[in-house]
Amino acid sequence: MRIEIVTIGDELLLGFTIDTNAAHLARELAALGVQVVRRATVGDRAEEIAAAVRDALDRTGAVIMTGGLGPTADDLTKPAIAALFGRSLALDPAIVAHLERIWKERGRPGALPATNLQQAMIPEGARVLFNRHGTAPGIWLEDGGGRWAAMLPGVPREMRGMLADELLPLVAARAGAGAGVVRSRTLRTTGIAESQLAVTLGDLAQRAEGLPVAYLPGVDGVDLRLTARGLGADEAERTLAAGAARLRERLGRFVYGEDDADLAAVVLDACRARGLRVAVAESCTGGVLAARLTAVPGSSDVVEGGVVAYDNRVKRELLGVDDRDLQAYGAVSEPVARQMAAGVRERLGTAVGVGITGIAGPGGGTPEKPVGTVWIAASVEDAAWAARTLFIGDREEIRRRAAQAALDMLRRMLLFPAERG
Amino acid sequence: MRIEIVTIGDELLLGFTIDTNAAHLARELAALGVQVVRRATVGDRAEEIAAAVRDALDRTGAVIMTGGLGPTADDLTKPAIAALFGRSLALDPAIVAHLERIWKERGRPGALPATNLQQAMIPEGARVLFNRHGTAPGIWLEDGGGRWAAMLPGVPREMRGMLADELLPLVAARAGAGAGVVRSRTLRTTGIAESQLAVTLGDLAQRAEGLPVAYLPGVDGVDLRLTARGLGADEAERTLAAGAARLRERLGRFVYGEDDADLAAVVLDACRARGLRVAVAESCTGGVLAARLTAVPGSSDVVEGGVVAYDNRVKRELLGVDDRDLQAYGAVSEPVARQMAAGVRERLGTAVGVGITGIAGPGGGTPEKPVGTVWIAASVEDAAWAARTLFIGDREEIRRRAAQAALDMLRRMLLFPAERG
Repeated sequence: MRIEIVTIGDELLLGFTIDTNAAHLARELAALGVQVVRRATVGDRAEEIAAAVRDALDRTGAVIMTGGLGPTADDLTKPAIAALFGRSLALDPAIVAHLERIWKERGRPGALPATNLQQAMIPEGARVLFNRHGTAPGIWLEDGGGRWAAMLPGVPREMRGMLADELLPLVAARAGAGAGVVRSRTLRTTGIAESQLAVTLGDLAQRAEGLPVAYLPGVDGVDLRLTARGLGADEAERTLAAGAARLRERLGRFVYGEDDADLAAVVLDACRARGLRVAVAESCTGGVLAARLTAVPGSSDVVEGGVVAYDNRVKRELLGVDDRDLQAYGAVSEPVARQMAAGVRERLGTAVGVGITGIAGPGGGTPEKPVGTVWIAASVEDAAWAARTLFIGDREEIRRRAAQAALDMLRRMLLFPAERG
Repeated sequence: MRIEIVTIGDELLLGFTIDTNAAHLARELAALGVQVVRRATVGDRAEEIAAAVRDALDRTGAVIMTGGLGPTADDLTKPAIAALFGRSLALDPAIVAHLERIWKERGRPGALPATNLQQAMIPEGARVLFNRHGTAPGIWLEDGGGRWAAMLPGVPREMRGMLADELLPLVAARAGAGAGVVRSRTLRTTGIAESQLAVTLGDLAQRAEGLPVAYLPGVDGVDLRLTARGLGADEAERTLAAGAARLRERLGRFVYGEDDADLAAVVLDACRARGLRVAVAESCTGGVLAARLTAVPGSSDVVEGGVVAYDNRVKRELLGVDDRDLQAYGAVSEPVARQMAAGVRERLGTAVGVGITGIAGPGGGTPEKPVGTVWIAASVEDAAWAARTLFIGDREEIRRRAAQAALDMLRRMLLFPAERG
């Protein structure tokens, strides 16, 4: 089954509100095997709403709308779509009663205002989608040829509730069984560029087990998403598992997890398994690494603490970095990064230490050490590594990439100790 | 001028990624007086891309696309649109040189892979939109009848940079003068709830200078947005300025800035003006406050550093918190917060210190100190404040709200010292 989504509202079209409803709808429909082929956003003008829905119905015969069902004057969806289907509007007494009950429950003064009654106007022959999360009811309209359009409110909480309660069962019944689902699985990689991933994957660069491979680069690395479409639920899961296994085999240690995996949680688990506690010393990242680690619930059983050594004086006095090395090599240098990692470990009494020092920009770069240059050092029990990297992006991206790289250095030292050092 | 936006990508259509590009584009275009009348999202299929762009061109003759310009095989926008305009693709030597230069600058091994060259394929007769923020160039294509389509990459940072650098000037030139604009201005408030804001604003709660007031609550506080529609550019700016002044007058110190103002930058400026340096001590926020401060470019002339005192041992040994107070009052208590602020100040030799200790959850709450309980203390020269707050939200929201509240405490101590203490 193919479907289109139309979201309605000047706020969306003008960009004052980010459209999260469309993404939620698409995910829920995909899980039913319903394919969203296009989505459109139009403003609060009846003719634009009608035109977008007419176009979509001509292409797929099935449209879900959100927005424009409230009591205010700019809510025009219902009259526009009623006109498109050639229906008139009439007051629905059951909805009037529902609205009056809510009005009283909320302790509002006096009788329900007439403007609110607009919500109880329903196109003839429509099916009402009950809204137990708010006031505006949803509507399902269908013509003699089986083409249908469903209207949901734009408030995300109400939309999500009604979708689950009322609309998805109707859509599932139409889609029928055996339509095939859309399922996906994501492998998270870091420390390897998008183009290098494609080279490393070779014959798997485009497809694995017949499933297309999508590359999603981000600050944390490149995610690889496999998507299965048109298969039954069980076969989709089996094929995704087999495809993910083939990619993992090819990529080895570059894969740190799947789907929502967080590298900080991976590192914490690896430390926890060996009873190691962690301390971090940060200069250019200024707390970003500590915040990543402590964002994970339960991190206090691994994270001892950290030092943000933004000024060189803090590097010397709290971390014991040698002033001669600061003078001779500069703050962004291998000896300083190594001494920061060793110093914070010693100072906080942990088995694992990390040091990060670099130039996040926009100022401070030199030809030898351009903006983005970062030295990262890690020390785990009796092993120590250090590496220099040139990160791309703006200040915040450089800081986030550096924190992610530091976590990856720890992961590799903890899980693949034979590889280096 | 009327325009349509088409955003491209399976990840958008399937709802895996929220489409923030479309909102950004719409806001920037509205500020030029260009009206976005519809936007559409399609997946990574050449025929769907071409159909959506053809429909949009038929309606408005002007389309901006984002996405589908990268080096991987699912990037199909350029060939689809070139075909739509009846153009062939050819390698652009200047872009090849740009790509090779970036490849070398990033220290990648060997020659530029052939897959990356796809980015240098340009439709004949197209105007190249230079991408100084990344590799994929943008493209402007126009037919003999004045209909045009512009393609930008989907990576938000690159898209935003190219839009400002290259595309907006082209669009502005076409739009001409005299169209009514949509402009908005945002006042950022913190430390006051949305409902209390409306009470404080009184007769200005709905409209100021005739402009509607929108309430946008977020983790950093509640933003108030005034929007002017349909006025000329100068009149819009004048009315917005007058409306903002009326709101500011009513709200006083609850307003910390406008539009993209960052409270961390406000605090740094206030410290800089008085030549004060800052040190922070964090327990539950675990580096979030330090990261906020050091995210601001140039913060190193104010921020000395910080201590993430996650374990009580770090509170005692690095910050000098009294063990008897930790035992008697617990780590989340007024004396501990005050000693953290004073201790980090003394230890790092600064005039300003902050201490944060709380329960970010999800575990660790008690009836006396439920999840969300946070003690914040600040010490500025010879003044010291402390406050207990119960923050709402999940772990990350509580941490972010606590960091914002700590910054606001500093702002008030620095800018409104007579108010308290």
